[in-house]
Amino acid sequence: MSATTTPDADLRQSLVAWRRDFHRFAEPGWTEFRTSAAIISVLRGLGWRTVYGPELHGASGRLGVPGPEVLAAARERAIAQGADAELVAAMGEGFTGVLGVLETGRPGPTVCFRFDIDSNDLIESAAPDHRPAAQGFASVNAGAMHGCGHDGHAAMGLGLARLLTGLRDELNGSVKIIFQPAEEGLRGAHSLVAAGWLDDVDVFAATHLVADGRPGHVVTGADTYLASTKFDVEFAGVGAHAGGDPEKGRNALLAAAQAVLGLHAIPRHSAGASRINVGTLTAGEGRNVVPRAAHLRAETRGQDSAINDFMFARAQEVVAGAAAMYGVEHSLTVVGRADREDPSPELLPFAAACFQDLPGVTVISERPDGPSGSEDATAMMRRVKERGGLATYVHIGMATEWGHHTERFDVDEDALAIGVEAAARMALGAPEFLASLPERS
Amino acid sequence: MSATTTPDADLRQSLVAWRRDFHRFAEPGWTEFRTSAAIISVLRGLGWRTVYGPELHGASGRLGVPGPEVLAAARERAIAQGADAELVAAMGEGFTGVLGVLETGRPGPTVCFRFDIDSNDLIESAAPDHRPAAQGFASVNAGAMHGCGHDGHAAMGLGLARLLTGLRDELNGSVKIIFQPAEEGLRGAHSLVAAGWLDDVDVFAATHLVADGRPGHVVTGADTYLASTKFDVEFAGVGAHAGGDPEKGRNALLAAAQAVLGLHAIPRHSAGASRINVGTLTAGEGRNVVPRAAHLRAETRGQDSAINDFMFARAQEVVAGAAAMYGVEHSLTVVGRADREDPSPELLPFAAACFQDLPGVTVISERPDGPSGSEDATAMMRRVKERGGLATYVHIGMATEWGHHTERFDVDEDALAIGVEAAARMALGAPEFLASLPERS
Amino acid sequence: MSATTTPDADLRQSLVAWRRDFHRFAEPGWTEFRTSAAIISVLRGLGWRTVYGPELHGASGRLGVPGPEVLAAARERAIAQGADAELVAAMGEGFTGVLGVLETGRPGPTVCFRFDIDSNDLIESAAPDHRPAAQGFASVNAGAMHGCGHDGHAAMGLGLARLLTGLRDELNGSVKIIFQPAEEGLRGAHSLVAAGWLDDVDVFAATHLVADGRPGHVVTGADTYLASTKFDVEFAGVGAHAGGDPEKGRNALLAAAQAVLGLHAIPRHSAGASRINVGTLTAGEGRNVVPRAAHLRAETRGQDSAINDFMFARAQEVVAGAAAMYGVEHSLTVVGRADREDPSPELLPFAAACFQDLPGVTVISERPDGPSGSEDATAMMRRVKERGGLATYVHIGMATEWGHHTERFDVDEDALAIGVEAAARMALGAPEFLASLPERS
Amino acid sequence: MSATTTPDADLRQSLVAWRRDFHRFAEPGWTEFRTSAAIISVLRGLGWRTVYGPELHGASGRLGVPGPEVLAAARERAIAQGADAELVAAMGEGFTGVLGVLETGRPGPTVCFRFDIDSNDLIESAAPDHRPAAQGFASVNAGAMHGCGHDGHAAMGLGLARLLTGLRDELNGSVKIIFQPAEEGLRGAHSLVAAGWLDDVDVFAATHLVADGRPGHVVTGADTYLASTKFDVEFAGVGAHAGGDPEKGRNALLAAAQAVLGLHAIPRHSAGASRINVGTLTAGEGRNVVPRAAHLRAETRGQDSAINDFMFARAQEVVAGAAAMYGVEHSLTVVGRADREDPSPELLPFAAACFQDLPGVTVISERPDGPSGSEDATAMMRRVKERGGLATYVHIGMATEWGHHTERFDVDEDALAIGVEAAARMALGAPEFLASLPERS
Repeated sequence: MSATTTPDADLRQSLVAWRRDFHRFAEPGWTEFRTSAAIISVLRGLGWRTVYGPELHGASGRLGVPGPEVLAAARERAIAQGADAELVAAMGEGFTGVLGVLETGRPGPTVCFRFDIDSNDLIESAAPDHRPAAQGFASVNAGAMHGCGHDGHAAMGLGLARLLTGLRDELNGSVKIIFQPAEEGLRGAHSLVAAGWLDDVDVFAATHLVADGRPGHVVTGADTYLASTKFDVEFAGVGAHAGGDPEKGRNALLAAAQAVLGLHAIPRHSAGASRINVGTLTAGEGRNVVPRAAHLRAETRGQDSAINDFMFARAQEVVAGAAAMYGVEHSLTVVGRADREDPSPELLPFAAACFQDLPGVTVISERPDGPSGSEDATAMMRRVKERGGLATYVHIGMATEWGHHTERFDVDEDALAIGVEAAARMALGAPEFLASLPERS
Repeated sequence: MSATTTPDADLRQSLVAWRRDFHRFAEPGWTEFRTSAAIISVLRGLGWRTVYGPELHGASGRLGVPGPEVLAAARERAIAQGADAELVAAMGEGFTGVLGVLETGRPGPTVCFRFDIDSNDLIESAAPDHRPAAQGFASVNAGAMHGCGHDGHAAMGLGLARLLTGLRDELNGSVKIIFQPAEEGLRGAHSLVAAGWLDDVDVFAATHLVADGRPGHVVTGADTYLASTKFDVEFAGVGAHAGGDPEKGRNALLAAAQAVLGLHAIPRHSAGASRINVGTLTAGEGRNVVPRAAHLRAETRGQDSAINDFMFARAQEVVAGAAAMYGVEHSLTVVGRADREDPSPELLPFAAACFQDLPGVTVISERPDGPSGSEDATAMMRRVKERGGLATYVHIGMATEWGHHTERFDVDEDALAIGVEAAARMALGAPEFLASLPERS
Repeated sequence: MSATTTPDADLRQSLVAWRRDFHRFAEPGWTEFRTSAAIISVLRGLGWRTVYGPELHGASGRLGVPGPEVLAAARERAIAQGADAELVAAMGEGFTGVLGVLETGRPGPTVCFRFDIDSNDLIESAAPDHRPAAQGFASVNAGAMHGCGHDGHAAMGLGLARLLTGLRDELNGSVKIIFQPAEEGLRGAHSLVAAGWLDDVDVFAATHLVADGRPGHVVTGADTYLASTKFDVEFAGVGAHAGGDPEKGRNALLAAAQAVLGLHAIPRHSAGASRINVGTLTAGEGRNVVPRAAHLRAETRGQDSAINDFMFARAQEVVAGAAAMYGVEHSLTVVGRADREDPSPELLPFAAACFQDLPGVTVISERPDGPSGSEDATAMMRRVKERGGLATYVHIGMATEWGHHTERFDVDEDALAIGVEAAARMALGAPEFLASLPERS
Repeated sequence: MSATTTPDADLRQSLVAWRRDFHRFAEPGWTEFRTSAAIISVLRGLGWRTVYGPELHGASGRLGVPGPEVLAAARERAIAQGADAELVAAMGEGFTGVLGVLETGRPGPTVCFRFDIDSNDLIESAAPDHRPAAQGFASVNAGAMHGCGHDGHAAMGLGLARLLTGLRDELNGSVKIIFQPAEEGLRGAHSLVAAGWLDDVDVFAATHLVADGRPGHVVTGADTYLASTKFDVEFAGVGAHAGGDPEKGRNALLAAAQAVLGLHAIPRHSAGASRINVGTLTAGEGRNVVPRAAHLRAETRGQDSAINDFMFARAQEVVAGAAAMYGVEHSLTVVGRADREDPSPELLPFAAACFQDLPGVTVISERPDGPSGSEDATAMMRRVKERGGLATYVHIGMATEWGHHTERFDVDEDALAIGVEAAARMALGAPEFLASLPERS
């Protein structure tokens, strides 16, 4: 592979600058208006084709999109924070995210990289030894913070685009870089897949920075993500004065309490790990009123999709039965989901070779050694594999003290260049690698 | 009224003898084969017409009848304990109880008295200071004991029949004495009412001995019985090995546990007292098996029938919803019920007059001063009132230490003659009393 | 009684103006800074002694006071809405409410009237046929609205003060008018009582406007208020990632759900009505986090204080047990309470006489005919009676369509003058009335 | 190995005869009086030393022993079914089971085999195509049935003893055969271990017949048994009349219902599989009585002992908290337990060699491929390993249609000789095998 894949000092500076800019103006899922607009601007400047707005997601099918007031406020804020107003308008009702495409015009495979770009619902620490606070790039958007490294992912995506632009003459086929919105809550991948953008992909890699305290530890085939379904439940009963005529009420809180217990009583599955969580419950209008409404935010998980399907099917029964117990109405809405999908084993040695001998890389493993959360990039992996392509999910370890989804999470910025260079190598080497596979020769 | 209503020494002895015989051979609801056969024999000896078997109840409509094995064993036992085998056969599948009718042939009202005859599910005390044990008439039927005085009631009914037979020439119209089965559990009255035996009744009185420690304290219009519904619930799920494949189970115990909590969470009613109880729960097959079956015995009550209806309607929702939560089947069977029915106010002075100056009577009140259980005689009262008759429910206090439904309950046998004489007065005086009422004149 | 007790046109206009001013600037319990300051100004202008701030309540003992930020914001708002800044500062950390005292210097009884002044947590209707909205005096304070008529009560208190000032020479003894804060939630009366302001009261009356659609229907001895305890519960567990390591969590939401069911399963009480309500439950931090915290707002009630005490004692057990089930910490804080207290029967004829023949009065009853909520004025009544005085609670019916605690509640302003005149008659007539009582002569 | 290890026709007949005899007189855990007496007789006849009664278990420390009436009835039945009365008396209060010892007098290792002998709580099928029924050896003991093959295990133990007696001159060291009582419920192994009988064992093997439909499929190192704790819970409250004074009750059923839900809500463990089951719940005395007592039979399991310990520790909290919620007493008794213990890896090739080429053996695997229940032989394995010995757990597949713990379970009697011969080979070959191990040479 060509030594020219190494990011130079200028690109390294840009990676940090982009990451800090995204960090400062953190935007939660489906409100990444400013982030997306900034990405579009850079890609356009590099001459890439950009896909965004309803074209990217299709008109329907997105999961867990916030309500119109939230979107309107986010658009307004994005513009106030420097986003191009026309681009923001084009993303309208939360059609955020960007697909950048580089077409060489030469025959060859389509290689696709996925970076997610949304922030978390966290209040960032103001502690003086929290670097973003100390150096002035802590989030200025209240309640939003990049606590999972997606600011770094977005920067890596831009860095990769710039690097590949310079390597254009050495590339064959096409490169796609997906800047995915709304990974948190497992919401953003599905509509992108449904819109067909993965259908022609031959090699796919998603990359995630991992705060494991092991800088340079690379995992080429992360396979421990749990299948998961995220869902909201509304119980709607009838209020009544709790002292005057309690019998007239239909108590939504009691239905919710029974449901919470019933959800946790869904049996363990003998085929593998399962999970259930009711993360939040908000119910009732006042101390002396029989609660009319209750709202749950919950999730199931499974070591594979069948186990998660079992959990979610039982969960739906539990919720419906609990509502019936109390004569209250209910609605259950899926707001996110992820399947379990294994990396393509034949892709892993190639991925390892792309990380081999890169500065800062210390260990390269095939599989992670701990439990994981869930990831909707699996939907992309599944689609690529269904269509005959190869897909994997890569972890890059970081020298970081605080864990993901904490108020003190920070990105080890040295890891950014590693991810960029390995991806560039993958794009460059994919034609030869694919040609070497027996079934593809 | 005639002084000849006073029971003589012979009748007093018979009252005690009958009562102790019934006590010794206690029979629970719908299995009073020996008790009923004995009653029929006495009534026949007095020349009364007797109605029993399916004619008494109609072919269907009885509530809470035990299963065929229980009935077969009870029939066999009754015969072994001296019951007439033909009569037992005639009562077949639990068509117990007797209606005795005395028709004078002279015009006049129909006066009806109700005495219940079934025993309780109690293990009678063997304590040496428990009179039935000390004097050899404790129950010989394991798990069955007259713990509510129905042995005394049955004896009073027979005493009344014998007394009225002697007074036959002074009576007008007809007298009916109902020896009702299965009052415990509120099961026995409804089919008797449905069969029409109360339709022609002009004056109705039910009598109950009360262990209130106030001998001779008479209440002429007991009106505090709660409306109630008794019901059984079966949950039927799917068993599974709790270690090997718990996900294959459908857990009936969990459904039952949720139902129990949901039943107790039915709201209080602002219009008056309500009650809920799940008295027993039996579930599961073995420690390491996901429970396949669960069985509840429960009841609702209400200060009036509307409140009880509210409770029972909500209870049905709770049970159905809990079953749905766990994907188990369920069935809910009403095995007993009672409405709330007020005594006819115009009857109370006449009832008081019948008790006036009787030996042993100390105080005569219109209403009781404490809370009560429930009573299915209210179904008879309601029917009588619907048809234009007058009805009431009488309490006779007893000098008794142990409460109803305890293993040491005993009847104050001095109270028996009081009840008999007052009832005889009522039968004799009814024509004149009715004639004195403005609306009936 | 003197005809001079009749409010003139000027006073009638003031009653309406005061009421509408209080309505427009509605302030919830313990934040009635502007309302209290306005009351103090009027009373000072009339020459009454005023007691307020910590002197009124004592330094400790107030129940359910909001946190310092809420109070600071309320103070700021009150000043912005015209309140005297010095008075607001004197009320500092929520020591709101006012006691006005008129001392005649002549011997005689102390007569005390109580009017409550706080608003409800409601969003007032903007419907064009809602008079406050149509006529421009709807609440300008978001989420606060006078939905229980305390704006009218406060106005009546001021009207009474002005009327009695004019009748000063005909009065004997002293008059106290208590403008009580924080009646909603049963919070404001107890510290006032503890501070001793009721200790010398001979005749006490609280007055409440009632939206029963029966204008001029007066109840002189409202006795159906339920005893009640209002309490908050916090469960504090340990968060954990619901996918990654759920076993590390201590689930506060599950503890809360079990507690909610356990609270509703507290048994009915055979001695009378009981109530339980968990009005609100808020739990959890995020969908994929084991809930670390849960917060309940709940209440018990009882037909008498013993029943409420039973309910609350059981509730404390339930909450502690539920916390122990899940290994979470808990705290339970009483934020309001009311006992049941009966009006003094000997006071009722006098109260009736004070309303007799007043313009607009249609019916005078001794007792209300429906169920009620709860009232902390009972604490004042209890104290007065304990010290040998007489106390009652008066209802004045109103021609109003919408019920209490609804967004469309409105005061029938014609009722204000009725309350004022009857109270003035009570103050004037109290010496003679008390002298007429046998035990006081 | 010597061909003389092959069971001859006579021994094969005896294996079947013994198994069918044990099957016919099935005895549940701690009541295996007849079974144990029969085993002692055979062993004595072969000249083996036998250990039984309190010497075998120590005076205390047995788990889950039935009450004295159950034991007395079982002793009486055993004698009636032919057991030696003196031996039965020696086993007294359920000290069942036998240890047979063959000491060669020559130096060499101690090799120990464990066979369990207790039956299950099942009603055996009477279907004509159920072989035990068709051929007249179905269980004659109501409610007891060999539904897990322990009848076959006991027969194998006796067959092994007879075979080894014949091979006595070729053996070195000692052989122990443990006929363990009460494996069902994980009760019988612990006291035997505590009494020291495993302390000198160098090679240990437990053998289990498995109804997997794969005759001759041998697993040499079954390692999927879950750690487990079996426990009973009693809740003791206060009864009360559910209509008359429910507030006087302390509801044990409600405590149990909450506990059941709380137990099932114990979180999943990220380190591996966990299980919880409440297999049975029995509560309450009568429909109209507030339940005074409730009894649960429950179990936890874990993929390793730490996970099971986590489950059981949480379960204890849940039960204690639920009792506290309702002010009822509770007690929790451990009636069985098993740890997870892995087979010694160095023993597996030797075990495989012992099965190699045996008639009927089809496949030899190291590990099972499905989930399992739990086993208290792990306590023996643990002790042997702690003392420096090697231990394993062997499965022998059977051509059987019906699963374990079903009413139609039957033993594939062809498997018996396989187990016997492999064990004999193990006893004969152990000295050489042990000498071959590097660390033991």
